[in-house]
Amino acid sequence: MSKFMVIGERIHCISPAIRQAFADRNPDPILLRAKEQLTAGADYLDLNIGPAERDGEDLMQWGVKLLQENFDNVPLALDTANMKAIEAGIKVYNRAKGKPIVNSADAGDRIGYLDLAAANDAMCIALCSKEGVPADNDERIMYCSELLERGMEHGMEPTDMLFDPLFIVIKGMQDKLMDVLEAIQMITDMGLLTTGGLSNVSNGAPKHIRPLLDSATIAMAMQCGFSSAIVNPCDRRLMETVVACDIIKNNILYADSVLEF
Amino acid sequence: MSKFMVIGERIHCISPAIRQAFADRNPDPILLRAKEQLTAGADYLDLNIGPAERDGEDLMQWGVKLLQENFDNVPLALDTANMKAIEAGIKVYNRAKGKPIVNSADAGDRIGYLDLAAANDAMCIALCSKEGVPADNDERIMYCSELLERGMEHGMEPTDMLFDPLFIVIKGMQDKLMDVLEAIQMITDMGLLTTGGLSNVSNGAPKHIRPLLDSATIAMAMQCGFSSAIVNPCDRRLMETVVACDIIKNNILYADSVLEF
Repeated sequence: MSKFMVIGERIHCISPAIRQAFADRNPDPILLRAKEQLTAGADYLDLNIGPAERDGEDLMQWGVKLLQENFDNVPLALDTANMKAIEAGIKVYNRAKGKPIVNSADAGDRIGYLDLAAANDAMCIALCSKEGVPADNDERIMYCSELLERGMEHGMEPTDMLFDPLFIVIKGMQDKLMDVLEAIQMITDMGLLTTGGLSNVSNGAPKHIRPLLDSATIAMAMQCGFSSAIVNPCDRRLMETVVACDIIKNNILYADSVLEF
Repeated sequence: MSKFMVIGERIHCISPAIRQAFADRNPDPILLRAKEQLTAGADYLDLNIGPAERDGEDLMQWGVKLLQENFDNVPLALDTANMKAIEAGIKVYNRAKGKPIVNSADAGDRIGYLDLAAANDAMCIALCSKEGVPADNDERIMYCSELLERGMEHGMEPTDMLFDPLFIVIKGMQDKLMDVLEAIQMITDMGLLTTGGLSNVSNGAPKHIRPLLDSATIAMAMQCGFSSAIVNPCDRRLMETVVACDIIKNNILYADSVLEF
């Protein structure tokens, strides 16, 4: 099996510093966050430019070129509600280190993102949902199947779709979390790849508690076949857990130094 | 489901301080280690008096009474190659907080420990092995079934047997570790309880690396249904992981304070 794929989530317009940097086309805060995440072990970087209704195409192209030129064509997930901006980003994207990932489609209003990925030979994060969090795994698998069928109809390889079961918040829906892990197992058993915004699990928990919950969750998910996640790679405990689980799964060869990064 | 059961491993004659304390019948080092483990969250304490060929019966009775009188009848696993010593220990054991655990039977030379547990209404750790580490899960499940049948023939409840799949060492047998996790899932699917000497996984790894490997392993094992383990409860990262997994599995109710022990 191939090792777990870490998509770094920290270049996100929800951060005031990043939002300002986007507005000013100021490279420094963005390059800093990119470097931190890559040093910490991220495989892909998510580039979230927000809604970007006005200048999304220009902004995405600027961001893609900035990151890829400075970090040896680092592979990217292109993340915005502006579809034209994603398309524009793909136009200038260098595939030397991996296909671009479109973030994200769902089985409802965002189904067009899957078509966009298919038309541009990109990968796509496919949320197993239509409106909000799915009620149960019947829904998750139904939406997963709909998305799979749609993608394949449009010529995608099943392995270019990363199915996201939607992690739920422990605070409030604790009794439903094992469903998400079961869904990962079910999707894995279908021969498909998975991903997810893992940190949603610990949303609302105190800052020092979140890494404990996130790392336990990712280890349990990796036992179920979880193959990638959108996370903060600067959470050292989380990344140590990912590497340890990859060792246990025999995805990477054990050496003491592997865990001394 | 009930929460994970932690059996503290640190009162063990392999420690020079404990061995000396046993020889001198000196309570202090033993009470100290008991207190540390209970404070850290141990549910059971393992009392390993070694081979204890000469004075095992007296020593085990002394140890059982010492621990139970000082720690409100803390439940114990009685651990020695001297079967008469285990029997003597059970005679003075107070069951107010749980049955004694006989540590341990296997499907080979140590099968008599299962009979001993059955005859004394004790629980028993049942190693799924005959000689050394089982070669594969066919062997593990064959030995598990033999032990289950034998125990039931002697009147034991299946849930009084804790089946140990034998964790293997990453350094040297990395490619076999997922077998152990699969075995836990198989035994769990049979409706049975599991346990194991988890720290064997990281044997030979540097001291600061071991908690990383052990905690990732226990989270993955808990996803497979792992129901107890013989561990060092003073490994804080390990215990945080156990509690976090119990929360994720909805075995204990989430509150921020639960992870702030």
